[in-house]
Amino acid sequence: MRGAGELDVVGRAFVVGIDLGGTKVRAGIAALDDSGGGAAPGRPLAEVEQATAAGGGRALVTQVVGLVHELCAAVSSPIDAVHAIGIGGAGVPVDAHGGFEHAPNLGDLTSFSLADELRLALGCTVALENDANVAALGELAAGVGARHDDFAFVSIGTGIGMGVVLDRSLVRGAGNAAGEIGYLPFGGDPLDPAAHRRGPLEEVVAGDAFAARLGPEASARDVFDLAARGDARAIASLDEEAKWVAHAIAAVDAIVDPGRFVLGGGIGSRPELLAPIRDWLARLGRPDLPVTISELGGAAPVLGALHLARAAAGRTHEGVHA
Amino acid sequence: MRGAGELDVVGRAFVVGIDLGGTKVRAGIAALDDSGGGAAPGRPLAEVEQATAAGGGRALVTQVVGLVHELCAAVSSPIDAVHAIGIGGAGVPVDAHGGFEHAPNLGDLTSFSLADELRLALGCTVALENDANVAALGELAAGVGARHDDFAFVSIGTGIGMGVVLDRSLVRGAGNAAGEIGYLPFGGDPLDPAAHRRGPLEEVVAGDAFAARLGPEASARDVFDLAARGDARAIASLDEEAKWVAHAIAAVDAIVDPGRFVLGGGIGSRPELLAPIRDWLARLGRPDLPVTISELGGAAPVLGALHLARAAAGRTHEGVHA
Repeated sequence: MRGAGELDVVGRAFVVGIDLGGTKVRAGIAALDDSGGGAAPGRPLAEVEQATAAGGGRALVTQVVGLVHELCAAVSSPIDAVHAIGIGGAGVPVDAHGGFEHAPNLGDLTSFSLADELRLALGCTVALENDANVAALGELAAGVGARHDDFAFVSIGTGIGMGVVLDRSLVRGAGNAAGEIGYLPFGGDPLDPAAHRRGPLEEVVAGDAFAARLGPEASARDVFDLAARGDARAIASLDEEAKWVAHAIAAVDAIVDPGRFVLGGGIGSRPELLAPIRDWLARLGRPDLPVTISELGGAAPVLGALHLARAAAGRTHEGVHA
Repeated sequence: MRGAGELDVVGRAFVVGIDLGGTKVRAGIAALDDSGGGAAPGRPLAEVEQATAAGGGRALVTQVVGLVHELCAAVSSPIDAVHAIGIGGAGVPVDAHGGFEHAPNLGDLTSFSLADELRLALGCTVALENDANVAALGELAAGVGARHDDFAFVSIGTGIGMGVVLDRSLVRGAGNAAGEIGYLPFGGDPLDPAAHRRGPLEEVVAGDAFAARLGPEASARDVFDLAARGDARAIASLDEEAKWVAHAIAAVDAIVDPGRFVLGGGIGSRPELLAPIRDWLARLGRPDLPVTISELGGAAPVLGALHLARAAAGRTHEGVHA
């Protein structure tokens, strides 16, 4: 039980969750204590979305610091009331460097420590996690996790990534690189060295490849719009996307058997993809595999990043009192 | 600390571990308590190997009962001193049915309960696990697990299977089907319904496919023998095998990042395959992935099955005293 004085402190303690994507950055602020604040438990009190800083790298430090100040202003809080920041980034988090590796869409995050620079600038704990893992944490806390202990969350947008939850825990792998399914050896030619940078599968399912099948000036949104009007090339691009996503789902099913798949991301959450993905899964001999679209829509990554920040704040808190 | 009377009882308690393969059945008996018996801790006091009973299915009940009697005779023990049997089988264990699904090399094990029939016949606890998972448990207990907490054990013989260990625990999946990499959607044509029974990858890497590339009458051993003498077709079959095993390793690396791979099984443990697998991994953009051959040789599955039996006996023991 907490005394009145301590409750007062907890009431002014916050966490920030940030989804650092290759195209957009989304951020939210919430009470450190779920029961604090006026919003639904775990939900952000304020949110903000921006285009990702051009070139990524060190520009992301400035951008994240700016976002945290903006969110604090939105809830009328001083910056030192933020106890922890959780960041989901489109790459492999490396604890030793405090940055992300294999993050082609976020610029250079290995020659300096993103986590250290943010800690210095903001004076709080910073936790990094792969963006698809963070979205899977969001699903676990506020989405499919309400009904299922095991699932894979597959995010398709600027790139493709996955977070696998078994027995309500993230499968992180020996080097934090589990779920990097863009590197699956099919889709693009796995023997072509040019496909090794972002991965053979990502070469054919990433947003730019999805759009480029329609034409050099097309956007992913154009593909969906034109497919709805019956355009043959747009429909073919959708079908190609569904084919390789289905191959990835079949591979994940064979290797980790997560039992069900939840799709998210700018492309993955589009309902037009679901039927062709299911058709391809049937052709691949997996007609009954449960595949659904995330019910959290775009909210999963920020909710997961808030969850990550709360866990990091809890560890620091325990550390201080241990 | 145990009293002398209790030590006496423990000294006469045994477990049996059985590796139920599509071609051979290997079994071993060991003391329930690691410190009992004269052999090295955890090692079998007696072992036996037989061809798998023709047709599999119910014939396996008779075979396993016979093996347990034979092993008890070898250590001059009555049958009721066996507290538990651990069985690794080439399929997906299904708790509800007490058998194995997707076990094309073991006959029909879904229309009756293998576990129940063995319990009735032998009066002891019976634990079933996928054979590659059991071999991975053997590696964890007595092989690569001495130095590493994370690894994937890939077994290639009559079929292909895998057990993944992360943080010293088996990754079992939502339905016990993790590691069924024969179903990976490459190697054979993943859209051909004929490849869906045992899986597209297994269609090209299973022992029969490996041998058939040499000729209709060839055995897997013939491929290795002829390749050593420079036979072009044999060398091509080895290279084809290495190519698809390397694709599977790349896919597992992308999805679960186990950090290192240990190869076993009648084909997988052959040193001739290691160099071409590493060559293919380099061409797939993974030149530095650690891949080694199991140092336990053929011992891993029986050691893992004994480990499984001890765990099952422990759970029963706890249950009785809870």
